[in-house]
Amino acid sequence: MEIAFLLFDNYETLDVFGPVEIFGRLTDLYTLKFYSLDGGIIENKHGVSVLTEKLETVSANPYLLLIPGGMGTRKEVDNPSLIGQIKEKAGASSYVLTVCTGSALLARSGLLDGRQATTNKRAFSWVESMGPNVNWDKKARWKVDDKYYTSSGVSAGMDMALGFLADRHGIEFARNVAFEIEYNWIEDKDNDSFIAE
Amino acid sequence: MEIAFLLFDNYETLDVFGPVEIFGRLTDLYTLKFYSLDGGIIENKHGVSVLTEKLETVSANPYLLLIPGGMGTRKEVDNPSLIGQIKEKAGASSYVLTVCTGSALLARSGLLDGRQATTNKRAFSWVESMGPNVNWDKKARWKVDDKYYTSSGVSAGMDMALGFLADRHGIEFARNVAFEIEYNWIEDKDNDSFIAE
Repeated sequence: MEIAFLLFDNYETLDVFGPVEIFGRLTDLYTLKFYSLDGGIIENKHGVSVLTEKLETVSANPYLLLIPGGMGTRKEVDNPSLIGQIKEKAGASSYVLTVCTGSALLARSGLLDGRQATTNKRAFSWVESMGPNVNWDKKARWKVDDKYYTSSGVSAGMDMALGFLADRHGIEFARNVAFEIEYNWIEDKDNDSFIAE
Repeated sequence: MEIAFLLFDNYETLDVFGPVEIFGRLTDLYTLKFYSLDGGIIENKHGVSVLTEKLETVSANPYLLLIPGGMGTRKEVDNPSLIGQIKEKAGASSYVLTVCTGSALLARSGLLDGRQATTNKRAFSWVESMGPNVNWDKKARWKVDDKYYTSSGVSAGMDMALGFLADRHGIEFARNVAFEIEYNWIEDKDNDSFIAE
């Protein structure tokens, strides 16, 4: 089962590599791949240069598409090529996970309309404005609506990734992954201590 | 001030990119760079391909050298070229941070001899055997001895990176960085709930 991580310039480092660490522990279950609109090396402001493949080459029905946040989302919400491909690939995926302001990109595709979602508590108003027909939840650490998982800021993506594993494989399975990486998992998706004002 | 991250095949993803997220928030203070023994693309088992520069091109006196862990350390402890360069570059750095089994590589250089250190609680015996003259602490989340910071497994590297910021800039400075990434920081370096048997 392929897990596709979508990168773009100035993605947020941990939004991607927190979940990569978690799903990457389960290489017997998942194959991790990295994509961007045009493929090639993608950089961010932390100086991390990662090799990616073209997004259009992702398999027809990926198991999971993960969309990170980061300052790059401010630009990419106005990139119709990327939003169009997100709509197509997210629509075809069994599951879609967004971290932080990655939810703004998914919201722009229209796929979150009428759904429950959350996002970074420090960029809430901006993300809300990108998806006026989405039911945004200001309290959740992460939110699940059908196949769509949306998380709060940065490290909340790790909590959500573990929550996703718990939903698929049971809580003890997820707890064991958290234990292996010596991570203090926040298990409660409904309460975030970093709530929006 | 340059922060140099050392990569090698099969480094652990989060050991690197957790601290990258934390130090990367402070680009007015720090420049992040990525190195490997021979430079070029470095891959790990999670499929993350990162572009690096040659380790010998690191500045003469880097501010901070970070050495991650991961399964690759099992091979690299027997790579005299890498251990020799670690000895030289770590010796010249103002600070050296290791995450997880990265401490085994630093121990092999001899620079930890007679010092306090810790490591991954799930690989403790092996790391101990790589540094028989190191005073290994089985209880610490991370350990500080002079310029050497060594942390427990994977996500403990993030706690240590925040602890490093607290030591340099004060606890409120570090708490603010944790808040920005909505991270539930384990502030107490002396007690790890993932202790070794």
